[in-house]
Amino acid sequence: MRTRPLKVALLGCGVVGSQVVRLMTTHADDLAARIGAPLELAGVAVRRPDRVRDGIDPSLVTTDAEGLVTRGDIDVVVEVIGGVEPARTLIGRAFEHGAGVVTANKALLAQDGPALHAAAAEHGADLYYEAAVAGAIPLLRPLRESLAGDKVNRVLGIVNGTTNFILDRMESTGAGYGEALDEATALGYAEADPTADVEGFDAAAKAAILAGIAFHTRVRLDDVHREGIAEVTAADIASARRMGCTVKLLAICERAEDGRSVTARVHPAMIPLSHPLASVKGAYNAVFVEADSAGRLMFYGPGAGGAPTASAVLGDLVAVCRNKLGGGRGPGESAYSRLPVSPMGEVVTRYHISLDVVDKPGVLAQCAMVFADHGVSIDTVRQTGKDGEASLVVVTHRAPDAALSATVEALRGLDTVHDVASIMRVEGE
Amino acid sequence: MRTRPLKVALLGCGVVGSQVVRLMTTHADDLAARIGAPLELAGVAVRRPDRVRDGIDPSLVTTDAEGLVTRGDIDVVVEVIGGVEPARTLIGRAFEHGAGVVTANKALLAQDGPALHAAAAEHGADLYYEAAVAGAIPLLRPLRESLAGDKVNRVLGIVNGTTNFILDRMESTGAGYGEALDEATALGYAEADPTADVEGFDAAAKAAILAGIAFHTRVRLDDVHREGIAEVTAADIASARRMGCTVKLLAICERAEDGRSVTARVHPAMIPLSHPLASVKGAYNAVFVEADSAGRLMFYGPGAGGAPTASAVLGDLVAVCRNKLGGGRGPGESAYSRLPVSPMGEVVTRYHISLDVVDKPGVLAQCAMVFADHGVSIDTVRQTGKDGEASLVVVTHRAPDAALSATVEALRGLDTVHDVASIMRVEGE
Ligand SMILES: NC(=O)c1ccc[n+]([C@@H]2O[C@H](COP(=O)([O-])OP(=O)(O)OC[C@H]3O[C@@H](n4cnc5c(N)ncnc54)[C@H](OP(=O)(O)O)[C@@H]3O)[C@@H](O)[C@H]2O)c1
Ligand SMILES: NC(=O)c1ccc[n+]([C@@H]2O[C@H](COP(=O)([O-])OP(=O)(O)OC[C@H]3O[C@@H](n4cnc5c(N)ncnc54)[C@H](OP(=O)(O)O)[C@@H]3O)[C@@H](O)[C@H]2O)c1
Repeated sequence: MRTRPLKVALLGCGVVGSQVVRLMTTHADDLAARIGAPLELAGVAVRRPDRVRDGIDPSLVTTDAEGLVTRGDIDVVVEVIGGVEPARTLIGRAFEHGAGVVTANKALLAQDGPALHAAAAEHGADLYYEAAVAGAIPLLRPLRESLAGDKVNRVLGIVNGTTNFILDRMESTGAGYGEALDEATALGYAEADPTADVEGFDAAAKAAILAGIAFHTRVRLDDVHREGIAEVTAADIASARRMGCTVKLLAICERAEDGRSVTARVHPAMIPLSHPLASVKGAYNAVFVEADSAGRLMFYGPGAGGAPTASAVLGDLVAVCRNKLGGGRGPGESAYSRLPVSPMGEVVTRYHISLDVVDKPGVLAQCAMVFADHGVSIDTVRQTGKDGEASLVVVTHRAPDAALSATVEALRGLDTVHDVASIMRVEGE
Repeated sequence: MRTRPLKVALLGCGVVGSQVVRLMTTHADDLAARIGAPLELAGVAVRRPDRVRDGIDPSLVTTDAEGLVTRGDIDVVVEVIGGVEPARTLIGRAFEHGAGVVTANKALLAQDGPALHAAAAEHGADLYYEAAVAGAIPLLRPLRESLAGDKVNRVLGIVNGTTNFILDRMESTGAGYGEALDEATALGYAEADPTADVEGFDAAAKAAILAGIAFHTRVRLDDVHREGIAEVTAADIASARRMGCTVKLLAICERAEDGRSVTARVHPAMIPLSHPLASVKGAYNAVFVEADSAGRLMFYGPGAGGAPTASAVLGDLVAVCRNKLGGGRGPGESAYSRLPVSPMGEVVTRYHISLDVVDKPGVLAQCAMVFADHGVSIDTVRQTGKDGEASLVVVTHRAPDAALSATVEALRGLDTVHDVASIMRVEGE
């Protein structure tokens, strides 16, 4: 074992960063044995230097993150500040100064992944980010490395714990969205401003990262179709239940059947209770991967939290340090496929549609004709009526999303349709 | 991209080997892009050279495996012959001649892992074997690499598809063991000689490999306590059902609570229906991993079959090739912990025991005293009686296996106990 330590600069020391320090300290001997050299915490950059930070030598704490990263002797930079700036600039400086980088920053990667990878490659440095998607669950490494000899066709996952917790509460207590969100906030599962989670931005960033890795192509955040859970009602969840389904916010990355394009999207969807993702409760995450030869794989575990996320960061840290010592580099960006990302309209999916209609003969036939006119085939239709009002619940077969949404538009235009009460996609079959 | 190809020697071209060739052929361009150089199949060693092998140039086929491995220009050897010899000797020769090795051979690794790792290290070569445990499921790489910064405390898995299929049939049809085994054989899920599977040898080899990697220590096949499923009865499965459990053949690797030793074992056990492993059906595999910081992770997928296993082999092949090109080496054996492996008697577990007893007052008290005398605390006891015969079903709290088995011995010695009808451990809580 080498005795000269590898120097680690930690940028950010909040929920995740403080756990990174704890693991580096309590597992110091194990880490040294696994890496082949001890680790030394060379500095910790924060915003508020005067806060008391357990287990951290105050002389290591600085507000000069740039100075820390560029001081010349840093082997690896761990970025757990979050957000785009100053994280992006600091990571760039780290590469320029010969350091490898480990980050948990999904927002930055989804927005600027290609530029970051290019900078890493230019300087022969590593860029690892397992913690950015699905917290502690080993997912990016299996996709990048274990499945490197296979062809991934589909990634389907629950990658946001906050929304999964909220939907789970709505399901188990019958609560509405607002009430379940309040509960999540009170219990610390939702942030004071829950927008990034409930509007699906967080899941969309992860979908972009996953699609890029799974399909060896570049997928930008803007390429990801995004719908949040704020519109999901207790009635939707009850309808899902009636058809043997549950509602989950899913991130779905798919290769088109002809293999010539890919899609990435985040939206609430009904999935059958028999699907393994249906039983993923609370703040857990799980990701289904379908590959040509490997078949259907699932990865399950805690999707967030200080310690789980730090575990993923440390796994990357060990890899980057081992690469440094061996003089090599881990796999960089793999985007050779250059597949176009198709818009949502080209995604092939199924709809579950509830209509409030006039209760008179012929309405069902009239609605069915609208589906047929748009080339959408109906799987099941259920009609219930009372007091001159009827409700029609239609589940379609698979059709392009554009045809499905055009069908809904046309239904809205019918005199006999009072309201399209809910629309939800059906996945996982 | 380098244009000179990396040369691959394939040893064995059966269920797995033929799929390795298929993937190398159909995914040639993808593999070249991911590795940074094309792959060339340099030779295929088999036993019966005259068999027709689809998609393989007959001039590549040879019975001289040794000559192939030692010809001097081979970059990577893929060993999918199976068994100990000649696989062991051939792998040794491969290292001597500078080749990296990818193998799916759990039997060889469980028996001779340390010697193989030492030979690989001596020659600066790679030894990868993801396919040896749980087929297509990325499991060894996550354990070795993703969790390298964490402390794994427990691995609990269904790692043999044949026995899982049989237990699943017994559960869903009420069939006995023999009948379910016949069905598995007829459907191709069990081999003509099913001993390695049903007696737990296959799972024990995998448990030894998993424990070694999870705990950074050496665990030999002989260190693994092993019980098969041949004794599991329809009555056991019915009792499990009554207590909200199902029966699975589990491979369990645990770190002792004081952290100073480890255990590895394979045996049928009852697990609660609410446990994620309970819903793993048919020939699927799934492995639960509990780590200090990451928490509870699960990996799920096809545990065997030509294409899934070949997918895992190819993932390793890409890694070994990348390491070759980069001039580096992947992680070797990590056995620095040198923890002793404790015998089964020291494992702390729970028992479910069915006793046929004389139906007279005081028998329950007498039996309870036997448990108490051995320091085993009872969780629940259920007594049912008819016609002078009674049955007593006892579920214990956690206790050392030695105390539990001594309790059973003492119960057998009681006049009032006609028979210990069944004993099964209870896990997963
Ligand atoms: N929390 C999770 O469960 C989780 C899970 C997966 C991924 N992540 C990702 O991990 C990253 C960190 O998340 P977190 O939850 O640990 O965030 P956090 O608790 O808000 O911590 C952020 C840290 O960065 C420091 N900081 C902020 N601005 C800075 C600046 N300009 N210069 C230097 N330091 C600065 C803060 O300093 P002060 O301490 O002085 O405020 C704080 O220590 C994010 O990218 C997040 O998406 C988090
Ligand atoms: N099958 C699975 O689902 C699976 C899953 C995980 C791991 N594995 C492992 O993968 C390995 C291969 O399994 P498999 O199912 O592919 O076995 P298999 O179908 O029996 O194939 C064995 C191959 O090895 C060749 N062979 C046997 N003895 C040889 C010798 N002395 N020299 C050269 N070639 C020889 C055979 O030649 P012929 O073709 O001429 O008979 C055959 O091509 C085993 O270690 C197994 O444990 C298999």
